[in-house]
Amino acid sequence: MTDRIGVARNASEGQAEPPKRIGVVDTTFSRVNMGELALDELRKHPRRNELEVRRVTVPGVKDLPAAARRFFDQGCDAVIACGMVGPEDVDKTCGHEASLGLMWLRCKFGKPLLEVFVHMDEVAPEDEKGLFKVVDNRTREHAVNCVLMLLEPETLVKQAGTGQRQGFEDAGPVRL
Amino acid sequence: MTDRIGVARNASEGQAEPPKRIGVVDTTFSRVNMGELALDELRKHPRRNELEVRRVTVPGVKDLPAAARRFFDQGCDAVIACGMVGPEDVDKTCGHEASLGLMWLRCKFGKPLLEVFVHMDEVAPEDEKGLFKVVDNRTREHAVNCVLMLLEPETLVKQAGTGQRQGFEDAGPVRL
Amino acid sequence: MTDRIGVARNASEGQAEPPKRIGVVDTTFSRVNMGELALDELRKHPRRNELEVRRVTVPGVKDLPAAARRFFDQGCDAVIACGMVGPEDVDKTCGHEASLGLMWLRCKFGKPLLEVFVHMDEVAPEDEKGLFKVVDNRTREHAVNCVLMLLEPETLVKQAGTGQRQGFEDAGPVRL
Amino acid sequence: MTDRIGVARNASEGQAEPPKRIGVVDTTFSRVNMGELALDELRKHPRRNELEVRRVTVPGVKDLPAAARRFFDQGCDAVIACGMVGPEDVDKTCGHEASLGLMWLRCKFGKPLLEVFVHMDEVAPEDEKGLFKVVDNRTREHAVNCVLMLLEPETLVKQAGTGQRQGFEDAGPVRL
Amino acid sequence: MTDRIGVARNASEGQAEPPKRIGVVDTTFSRVNMGELALDELRKHPRRNELEVRRVTVPGVKDLPAAARRFFDQGCDAVIACGMVGPEDVDKTCGHEASLGLMWLRCKFGKPLLEVFVHMDEVAPEDEKGLFKVVDNRTREHAVNCVLMLLEPETLVKQAGTGQRQGFEDAGPVRL
Repeated sequence: MTDRIGVARNASEGQAEPPKRIGVVDTTFSRVNMGELALDELRKHPRRNELEVRRVTVPGVKDLPAAARRFFDQGCDAVIACGMVGPEDVDKTCGHEASLGLMWLRCKFGKPLLEVFVHMDEVAPEDEKGLFKVVDNRTREHAVNCVLMLLEPETLVKQAGTGQRQGFEDAGPVRL
Repeated sequence: MTDRIGVARNASEGQAEPPKRIGVVDTTFSRVNMGELALDELRKHPRRNELEVRRVTVPGVKDLPAAARRFFDQGCDAVIACGMVGPEDVDKTCGHEASLGLMWLRCKFGKPLLEVFVHMDEVAPEDEKGLFKVVDNRTREHAVNCVLMLLEPETLVKQAGTGQRQGFEDAGPVRL
Repeated sequence: MTDRIGVARNASEGQAEPPKRIGVVDTTFSRVNMGELALDELRKHPRRNELEVRRVTVPGVKDLPAAARRFFDQGCDAVIACGMVGPEDVDKTCGHEASLGLMWLRCKFGKPLLEVFVHMDEVAPEDEKGLFKVVDNRTREHAVNCVLMLLEPETLVKQAGTGQRQGFEDAGPVRL
Repeated sequence: MTDRIGVARNASEGQAEPPKRIGVVDTTFSRVNMGELALDELRKHPRRNELEVRRVTVPGVKDLPAAARRFFDQGCDAVIACGMVGPEDVDKTCGHEASLGLMWLRCKFGKPLLEVFVHMDEVAPEDEKGLFKVVDNRTREHAVNCVLMLLEPETLVKQAGTGQRQGFEDAGPVRL
Repeated sequence: MTDRIGVARNASEGQAEPPKRIGVVDTTFSRVNMGELALDELRKHPRRNELEVRRVTVPGVKDLPAAARRFFDQGCDAVIACGMVGPEDVDKTCGHEASLGLMWLRCKFGKPLLEVFVHMDEVAPEDEKGLFKVVDNRTREHAVNCVLMLLEPETLVKQAGTGQRQGFEDAGPVRL
């Protein structure tokens, strides 16, 4: 369950710093293997040698916060929490409750906690390829965001107000 | 109220580890004895010898979090919280409030807390057999999930993204 | 404000244990004296000699959690929080906020906190007798539940899944 | 910003006790100077000599909880938090979030925290006099409630179940 | 990422006090560079020499609370959290969850935390200039409010009940 992407530091960085630890948690409820998508993106990342990644899987979105808490207790610097939310009202409520748990953890630990949630009704019910596409894009973009938050926060400042979106096309900045 | 399923370890495991303690709490409001279903499933589980189970019953779903908190304070490694939620708006709100209490506990303790909630309007009002079937299936599947989370987390990773459902047929992974 | 129902223990119990302390809080907003109903039920209870009861009254449901917190800080073993919730949307929201406060306390203290809330629209607006009947029945049944939780938790286990209701007729277990 | 209403004790009370400290916070968003109304009522109160009052003003209702927290950290025995909530959905959500913050503080400190919120749609949009009347009445009645909670809790017990309202006519007890 | 607006004190203030530290956080999701607007307003402020400002950017509104927490942990006296909320139901829920995180922080730290949220449906979808105008005005007015809260709280007391608005025209006090 622990996937050490790398411990050696990029030579250009000079003196070795400890790698940043990222915890990835996803669900068996999801219809796409989101944890694997996140790991794949991190494994291909140019700065993969500065990362150490762990992964667990839980039943559903409501179980994500306990896993995230354990990751933080184990010393993770950031967590990527992936889940799919069903289309019914009761599913939406479950997703909201899970999000509030994750929010409480962000407030408590003050560490990046990327919430990669896809709602099954973001695409038409029969459009399984469309669903996969949204999940794939959103998970990968948030994995990249996670690395930026840990290693290149100044890049995010440059992107401030540019209407970035994950899973769909960017909205871009307002046109004046 | 304490049901010690087993303290002896499976011989194949080698040196004895302490059993995992699971707290089961259900309600008098429920129209099905959910706690008994959970206990029955745990008693039949192949790894039952590695588990120690306790049980309490409280009036309604809002009383589950206090009982869950006591279980964690007593050293439980996981809690299974079972409840039935009525069909009216006020019932939904009560269920949501109970869920938020359970969510807070997950965040605080970072331990598995399986929430087995059945909404009475998941089946037609007169379909009491259907209601029982959903309750029975969901409670038993979550009891199994609880054991996986405690003893076989790697099995859950293998199930990531496979569209597991509790109480109804699995959705399966997306078809591409 | 403190009503010591009894400090002597029932002789059949053998060696004296300290009485269980119950805090009762109700509101001036309520149109029924709910605190008095709870106290009356506790005073008539067969195990009244094992209970010590305190009472305060606050303006509205939002003020219940602070009073409940004080009761727990004073060493109460359980709290009965009684309130009436008005029929408007804003009233529902107030009731929900009060309930979340009480939920947070249950999570923090892990002690029984019986929430006796009656929504004014549970009966027709002009049916004041009906409103009283719901309030009276629900308050008394929860007072009894409170004693069970403190002194006879095994009785509640026997009632698991039997569809108990407070304020209206019991739903009973599912018929298969 | 600190308004010491009085430090001398009423002679009839015998030995001097320290005055009760009340923090009043209101908003610049409100269309009525609610903080001044609360202070005016406290200044006219028969037991004003037993009170010490402080006041701050913040931009909007969401800023009330931080100010209330500071009051409690400074040793206040109670807080009166006054705010006006706009008529749009987004305003209602802001009010709800502010109320949840105040609720969290009540749970944490177990001290009276009177929430004097007026929703702008409680009266017709053009009825500015009606709006003032509701604000004036509710603020003053809650200021009185605050004093009762601090100095005469037994008076509130006598009012239990009498259908008190703040801002509109009392509903009274149910008629049987 | 740290923008020290000034460390020298205004000569008229007499003895030097340490500057007030303000943390500004905004998002890449926003279609306007809100963090820059806040910084610009603070840089032009007459009391800019008494302020020290830091800035980070995060992906979306849900990531604001973790950044705000870090600012408070680093000793910031106040935080300005800027975000844009999309027009869909799921966006509204995300905004609400982010607001609850910020609310929790206000309760925990008791420090000013200005929430500058703009909902994309506050103006017509095609009205990008109108959107910018609301964002620009609200961000700048809250930056000014932040300075008032830190350095001139008595000015806010003078504005109590005057119907101040950020982003749109002030409502003014009620007309009697």
